[in-house]
Formats: sequence, structure tokens, C-alpha cells
Amino acid sequence: MSKKIVIVGGVAAGPKAACHLKRLKPGWDITVVDMDSLISYGGCGIPYYVCGDVSDESELRSTSFHMVRDVDFFANAKGIEVLIRTKAMSIDRQNKKLTVKNLDSGEEQQLDYDKLMLSTGARPFILPIDGTDLDGVFTVANLHKAIEIKKRISTGQVGKAVVIGGGAIGVEMAEAFTDLWGVETSLIEFMPQLLPNIVDYQFAAMLKTHLLEKDVAVYTGEGATEILGNEEGKVIGVKTPERTIEADIVIMAAGVRPRSELAKDAGLAVAPWGGIVVNNRLQTTDPDIYAAGDCIATTNLITGKQTYAPLGSLANREGRVVGDNLAGQATVFNGVVGAFIMKAFERCIACAGITYETAVAEGFDADYALTAPSDRAHFFPGEAIAVFQLVFDKQTRRVLGMQGFGLMNDSISARIDAAAIMISKGMVIEDFMLAEMAYAPPFSAAIDSINAAAFVADNICAGRLRKVGMDRFLAWMEDFSSEPDWAVLDIRHPLEAEPFVEKFGKENWVEVPYAEVRQRYEEIPDNKTLIIVCDAGTRSYEVQVFLDYIGKTNTLVLSGGMNVTRRMGVDWYPES
Amino acid sequence: MSKKIVIVGGVAAGPKAACHLKRLKPGWDITVVDMDSLISYGGCGIPYYVCGDVSDESELRSTSFHMVRDVDFFANAKGIEVLIRTKAMSIDRQNKKLTVKNLDSGEEQQLDYDKLMLSTGARPFILPIDGTDLDGVFTVANLHKAIEIKKRISTGQVGKAVVIGGGAIGVEMAEAFTDLWGVETSLIEFMPQLLPNIVDYQFAAMLKTHLLEKDVAVYTGEGATEILGNEEGKVIGVKTPERTIEADIVIMAAGVRPRSELAKDAGLAVAPWGGIVVNNRLQTTDPDIYAAGDCIATTNLITGKQTYAPLGSLANREGRVVGDNLAGQATVFNGVVGAFIMKAFERCIACAGITYETAVAEGFDADYALTAPSDRAHFFPGEAIAVFQLVFDKQTRRVLGMQGFGLMNDSISARIDAAAIMISKGMVIEDFMLAEMAYAPPFSAAIDSINAAAFVADNICAGRLRKVGMDRFLAWMEDFSSEPDWAVLDIRHPLEAEPFVEKFGKENWVEVPYAEVRQRYEEIPDNKTLIIVCDAGTRSYEVQVFLDYIGKTNTLVLSGGMNVTRRMGVDWYPES
Repeated sequence: MSKKIVIVGGVAAGPKAACHLKRLKPGWDITVVDMDSLISYGGCGIPYYVCGDVSDESELRSTSFHMVRDVDFFANAKGIEVLIRTKAMSIDRQNKKLTVKNLDSGEEQQLDYDKLMLSTGARPFILPIDGTDLDGVFTVANLHKAIEIKKRISTGQVGKAVVIGGGAIGVEMAEAFTDLWGVETSLIEFMPQLLPNIVDYQFAAMLKTHLLEKDVAVYTGEGATEILGNEEGKVIGVKTPERTIEADIVIMAAGVRPRSELAKDAGLAVAPWGGIVVNNRLQTTDPDIYAAGDCIATTNLITGKQTYAPLGSLANREGRVVGDNLAGQATVFNGVVGAFIMKAFERCIACAGITYETAVAEGFDADYALTAPSDRAHFFPGEAIAVFQLVFDKQTRRVLGMQGFGLMNDSISARIDAAAIMISKGMVIEDFMLAEMAYAPPFSAAIDSINAAAFVADNICAGRLRKVGMDRFLAWMEDFSSEPDWAVLDIRHPLEAEPFVEKFGKENWVEVPYAEVRQRYEEIPDNKTLIIVCDAGTRSYEVQVFLDYIGKTNTLVLSGGMNVTRRMGVDWYPES
Repeated sequence: MSKKIVIVGGVAAGPKAACHLKRLKPGWDITVVDMDSLISYGGCGIPYYVCGDVSDESELRSTSFHMVRDVDFFANAKGIEVLIRTKAMSIDRQNKKLTVKNLDSGEEQQLDYDKLMLSTGARPFILPIDGTDLDGVFTVANLHKAIEIKKRISTGQVGKAVVIGGGAIGVEMAEAFTDLWGVETSLIEFMPQLLPNIVDYQFAAMLKTHLLEKDVAVYTGEGATEILGNEEGKVIGVKTPERTIEADIVIMAAGVRPRSELAKDAGLAVAPWGGIVVNNRLQTTDPDIYAAGDCIATTNLITGKQTYAPLGSLANREGRVVGDNLAGQATVFNGVVGAFIMKAFERCIACAGITYETAVAEGFDADYALTAPSDRAHFFPGEAIAVFQLVFDKQTRRVLGMQGFGLMNDSISARIDAAAIMISKGMVIEDFMLAEMAYAPPFSAAIDSINAAAFVADNICAGRLRKVGMDRFLAWMEDFSSEPDWAVLDIRHPLEAEPFVEKFGKENWVEVPYAEVRQRYEEIPDNKTLIIVCDAGTRSYEVQVFLDYIGKTNTLVLSGGMNVTRRMGVDWYPES
């Protein structure tokens, strides 16, 4: 028995559901409506279009086999009707009718449906400040905006840019402006760090340092208070409490909000913050109406709480689940672990699960293992240090999250993806310790970064490794009087350690090389708390264990070591 | 209470156990004995040392912080005694004594132990043919051999090389000879394919094609019957049933066998093929004797059967497990999924779990999904096709294995590592469908390759996708009369399809472009079995579903499509 399916929204989840359902039920009648004229595009590709890596916007609307996904494509290749420039006005749930309006002709019509799907997406958050409607102020909301932004840059109208918002899109846009176009770009973020709530501050600091190296001016902890314009109504700058920054273009990338008015007006349950409430078959509170993509509320699989996860990859997987369920197959979508990855110039930053900060706030007995291993065999050409952090619950030993930072290649991706799987299944430190990662020297160290991070976590849980928090250590480095009985025990090579001894003095920076500790331990002072410091933290742990054994228990390990502090861009390194 | 631990074997598992245990029990007395003078090295790095990527062998024996791991290092930095050039002769289990012999002085002594660990490693298999003892015939058994091989190449003594054995080490050595030194290299493998029992034949064929492109002469299905020498006893060539190949050097890389005589002579249980039998705490049949690394038998987590997995990464993880158990912590090592990865020139090949061929042999209701997706967003610069195959059981839907082939970067690694985790936990197709992989265009497609392969597997299990085996299709392409009622339905772009129509004739190669099938389906013949062919197989599936719907059920899909056949190096492509 053929059914009539209507889908509101034609970007990601909607077309995916439509195409999948059409393969499951080729005889069903499927209509997609979208307000826009451009549909079914990879919105995540917009920064790469703006920077020029992607030369034409149609590539973002094309299949991998180079056909543009327009109305004709959906009609001819897919057998799906798409009504563009068509706005969904209201849902008559009683009579199962959707009222839609053609935005060009103004005509309204009613579409009957057996099942309805809402994939209405999100809209960018517009800051509640003056000047957001000036000419030259953009959101990264859709392809039309992207086309206009690129036109302005490529025609030489943009010398200076301000990006408001240090989330993924903000950072990607800042890179796009700076890297390929040489635009003088500032990035401002209201919160004290970039990627707030996505990564912990150490990782945000490493990202910020790299952006600064790449000539992006980054101001964290500074919100935009006003966008300034000239008399012609054109943007000329952005004000913060600290400064005024000149700009020919301003990008507002301050997050997105679910587009859920249609659902709310129809009486469907919608979270206070706007996400459409769905069950794990992605059904709304009306069983004949499904929802997926950037408009829904989903579940965080670690906290069990409602969350918002607007991401193209999730929209696609959710769309497929809706397609299955529309066809009568009970596929489920249980929630997300928040797997995240981003390119920033020559670096990659990624995470899965929750941050340490979130874990503490959620009441977990949380701790973290910060490590700085080689991304492949240390003798293999091109090897580089990566930084990983495992967040875990000390009571249950459940791994709650993992973060990674390293060179721009796929090696961070490899570890974060594996971690995402394990975190989504509630796995514990032991699972990470024993995870069998494919090994050869060009791809990993013999002890993979995932295993290594779990070993550190295990040592912490067992009480064998006592560490100092990176925050406390850095605060002390700013002001030794904050912890007057602390000193560093630097076990690195003398060539590395000596400049620090010279700068900070022997009373604050004690040097005994790693391989000599067993012979020279009597030189190590007993009257101070010693922060043991090496490059990555692993030798420091070894030394701590030995010193504990001989009765010197006055030590703390700096996990991640100087590999991490250097990447965080601290200003206390001796000049070389 | 201090204990005395003796460890036989100082390459990977042994030193790892020793160092880990010393951190857990700093007061214990740990002695490692090894026959060799060079210890604690990354044997997997030998091909990279030979090719020159690694300039000095000491790098393979160094820590990531550039200290050479020699006797002094273990004594001073680790507090562990290492006796080099010392052979373990026999174990007196009753009195817990190990008799060792100094290979230089000939002196024997007895070492008391509370617990003993055997990490005696493996020895290369010496082919039972004439000439294996000729000058210039090498195994890749240890660093000394590697040093000698490199010396001969770098001093211009090697113009032609033959590598016997198409496993990982054989392929890596062939690359080392060819790529950096320009040695004319032949690789011969007795079995019909490279990497036998590791990957299925499609993947082996893609690897072989790439090696041929890189000027390695590859002969599969050809065993060496004799190694030929001149009157001075120097190697001059290798004979196979098909040919004689000249050689200045011959590498025997025909696999390794466990070194387990010591264990066997002591009355410990040893598998008929030589692997020392251990429980999941890595205890031998004597609870005071542990074993780990290349000398043990382990368990294949998919089949549940005994297997052999000599790999540096496993040796390290096993070593840590032994260290834990020696210290009284009941860590377990349950077995392996056989995660494997290898660089071959500009390609990467990897797998986890078992092959389709093995799955069938093991009695699973096995099938496979062969896919050829983009390794990142199709619009992102540098995007390339990867090939993945998911092997699964149709009854239980359990995923049994995954294989990948693509460019030499970490993107195959990312998918195989995630798959290895899921396979090790017995996960099913649904888990792969819903796996949340971190997404951004520089790192993956919006639908990750793992998800995409699982979707195909799901379609196969549900009976929605009927495919032709790649083997049957290729056999038919060799001889159309083998299946006289078959024809291809090519739905690619006409520019791609037409040369094939021209070459093979309209009766064998029917062309209807994908986007026109819904309009032109009446042209599609009913009187033949149609093999639907596109680039990757996804459009073919869509077309099959549509044709089924309109009643044309005479179709089979070529999974993986022409992307796979092209990489397999078939010879029937029209000249371009």
C-alpha cells in the first residue's frame, strides 16, 4: 500500500531520509519542501568554499560522482519531488495536512501526508547587540551567505575581518580568511577559551597558540558589545570591552539554534531551548511525525541528559533512521557521544565524550590523564608529538571522554574514532588498555596512544601516579609565591634543563637527569614539594615511583610535561 | 617481600614486563637474559632502517627521548640487570632455577627465580630447499642481519634482489630495496596471492598491482624451489617452477616460528606448531612461569581458536599484562582480532578480524560488503577513493572482519582501528551502522566509510541487495561464454561507459546512465542477467531496487564497482 510522505527541510537529514525511504519503498510518494532554492548541500564545507579550496559552490551540492543535487536530479534520478522556495506554514495534525506557501508566487496549498518528517534545521544565533544588521555583517547560515562572503573577499573588498565566536565554524572561517586570502583577521570569543564546552582549556590553549602563530589575532574572554558602521550603513569595526577592532567584514559565528517553530505551533513537545523532543526512533510526540537533524534534542550517552548536536554527519545518520522507521523497520538512534574533529591550519583538534570540566560539573568522580606521545614510531620519518587526554571516572573506571591535538593528518582521527566507539558503549579504562590497534611503524607507536593514555589513567586510579593539575602548575609558574614550598625537579637532558635552572634559580628548578636519579637521589631536596618535569610525563612517573620507594614521597608529576606547556604557548620559556 | 624475577628474552615483551614490573615493585630484583648483544629494539622498524628512512640502527634501540637502550641504560635508568650474550639452557622447575650460559666465556651459571617469564620470541622459517646457507641469503631475523643487508646495499654490492615471501615483511623489504636504493627486486609468493590469510584476494590484487606499478616484479603462486650459488658459494639467483631470477641478495621472509624449545624441554605445554600454551593471565602450565610475545599461542577472538600473532605491539601489551600479574594484579589478555596495517609505497593496506575466505572455512554463514567510498568529503582537496570490505555472518549479523586499502595516510588506520574495537567486542552490523565517527570535511565523508560499509551489509542481509561475487564477475570478463546469459548494465556517465560498449559490444555491455534509468528502463533487456556496474556500487544498488520495483528482477550488483576492478589491475579496460 503506497503511502504519502512529506518532509520539511531539504539540506541533510531530509534528503537522506527521502532517498533511503525511496530505496526501501520505491512505490511510495515522497515530497520534500524547502524554503531555499539551493538544497541538499554540505554546509560543513562552507569554510572550504570561502577559502578557495572548493572552487565552486555547486561542488557542495554535488554527489561524489559529480551530479548537482537539484530539483531535476531528485525527480529524475531519485523519483522524489522537491518543492523549493516553499515554506511550511502550519501542520493540521488532525487531518494530516501540511500547509505550504510558495515564496515567489505567494500561493498556499495543502499537502496531505500519511507520515510527516521535520528536518527544519537550525538558524544562526544573532547577538543581541547593535549593528548586526549592517552591510558586511554575515552569518554562515546558508550557501547564499557563503557566496556573498566569497564574492566580497575575491573582489578585494575585504582587508580586515572580525569573526565573532570561537567555536568550530568561527575558527574555520578565521582560517579561511587568513590562510588563502591574507585577510587581517581577528577572532573574538566571549568565553575564556576557544571551543568552549568542547575541549578542556589545555587543548583550547594549544589551538589558540597555533592560530596566533598563523597571524590570527585571537581575543578570548572578550565579547562583542557593538558592531560599528559608517554613515552608509556599512560595517567598519567591532567593539569589545577591551578594544575596537577595524573590520570590512564581520562574521557572526555564535552558534545555532533549532528551527522548531513549526513543531511548537503544531503542539509537539519542544525543549525550552528549542530542540524538538523525539524518542529513540526519532518520533515526535505525534507518532505520525518524525524529526531529525539540527532541529532536534538528542541524548548525551555519557550524562544521559538532553543535548544539542547539530552536525551534518549526525543529520545523515538520523535521516537514515527516520527512513527505516517510516518504512516500518524499528531502527533506533540512542544519542551521541559528541565525536568532534576540526582542522585548524596545520593542526587537528578532536574529542569524543565529555570534557574534564563537564565531568566534574556533572558530578562524576572525574580525573584525567594528559599524555604527549609520538603519533607513530619515534624513528619513522615525519613522526610528531600528539597530545591526548583521557577523562575518566575514578570510581567506576568508565572512560568519559578523550581529546586529541596534533598535526593536520588523520592520526588524531584514528584515536578519537576508536575512543568514540568505546565511550559510546560505556567501556572502562581496561578496555582502552587492551584495545588492539593495528600497528606498523608508519602508523603508530608499538604502544598506541590509546593504550598509553589508558595506562596513565590506570596508574592514577591505582594511586601510583600523583600529579599536579596543569592549571595549578601554570599558576605557580606565574607566581612562585602562590606555592612557596614548591620546586621543579627537571629530569630532562641537561641541555634542555639548564636554561630553566639559570632563569628560575636552583632553589626553584632542580636538575637531575632521568638516567642519573638512581645514583644521585640524595641531591634531591626533601623540604619542598617537587613537581617532576620531563617532556611527556612518562619518565616523571618512573622517577616518582622510584623516589616513593626510597622514601621521598614529596613529589607530583606534571602529566603531559613540557611538550604540552610548550604547545600551550606559555611565556616563561627561556629565550633560546 | 622482595621477589626475584628472571626474564628470558630482551627484545619486546621481556623488557616491557621488566620495566612495568619495576614500576609496580621497585624493590624487586629483576634480571633479563638475552643471547644477543643488541636488545630492546623495534624489529618492525628493520625495513625502514634498510631503506634508509632510519639512518642508524641505534635509533631502533632508542627511547623516544633518544637514549640507547643498552645494558647500562637498563641498569642505571631502570634498575634492571640485563645479561647479554647469555643463553638460557634449561629450567629446573622443581628448584626454580634457570641455567644460563655466557656465549663468550662459555661459563654456565644458575639463576634462582621466584617467577620466570619466557619471551623467547620467534625464529624465521628456513625454507627446506637447497641454497639457503649461501652467502647473500638473509632472513630478517635480527638487527645484525639488518646491518649486514644494509651494508651490502649501501656499498653497491646489490643490483638485483629476490624476496621470498609475500607477507608483510617481504613486501616491506621489497619496497625498501626498490624505493630508496633502486635495486631491481622480485617478490615471490608460493600462495596464489600476497598477504595470504591476512586479506582476501581482491585486496591482495590491489596491493600487487601497486607493487607492479612501482617496478617490483611480483610472482604469486610460485614457490622457490632452489637458491642458486656460484662456485665461491655466493648467491646468484632463485629458481621457481616457472623461471630463474638473478639475484645478488635473497631475503627469506617466509614467516616465523615460535622459539619454544626451552619451554618444551621444561615440560610446559606447547602447541604442536610450537606456540607456548598460556591462560588469559599469560601463565604457562607452570603457574610460576609466564610467557608472552612471539613465542606464545594466543586466541583468535572471532573463531575462539588457537592462533599465532607475532607482532611488536601485541608483545608490548602482553608484556605489560605479565608485569601486572607478576606483581599480583589479575590483568587479562583474552586474545587478538588480528589488527594489521602495512605501508606499501604510496598505499596502505589493513585489516581486522578474519577474511571472507577464512569465515567461510570456519563455517560462518559469511558474506561481505565491498565498498569504494571517498576517504574524506568528496569536495575536499586531496580526497581519494578508499576500498573497504566488511565480512559478516548473515545469521547473527556479527561483523567478523574488515579490510581496507587506500592512499598512504592514516585514514585507513582510523577505520580499521575502530573496526578492530567493535569486532573484538562481538559487535553487529547495527553497531557499525550507528558508529559515531568524528566528522569534518578534511577527515571523512558525512557518512563515514564504516557506516557506509555497514549500510551495504545491512542491505545484503535484508535481501535488498543481490550482488555478484567479484571472482565470478572477473571470471566472466575473461570468458563471456562461462555465463552466456550475462550482460553488463553500465550506469556510469556515457563518457565512462561508451569505450566499454565499443570494446565488448552492445549485446554484452548495455549503457543507461544512472539518472535516466527511471525514464529509459524499457530499453533494459529482460532476457539476460544484468550485472549493474557503476564506480563504487552505490548507484547500482539504487538502480537494482528501482528495477525490482518495476518487475525487472534479473539484476546483480557489482559491489565496489569499477573503482575496485581498476585497482585490481584487470587487463580488459579499453585503452584510453
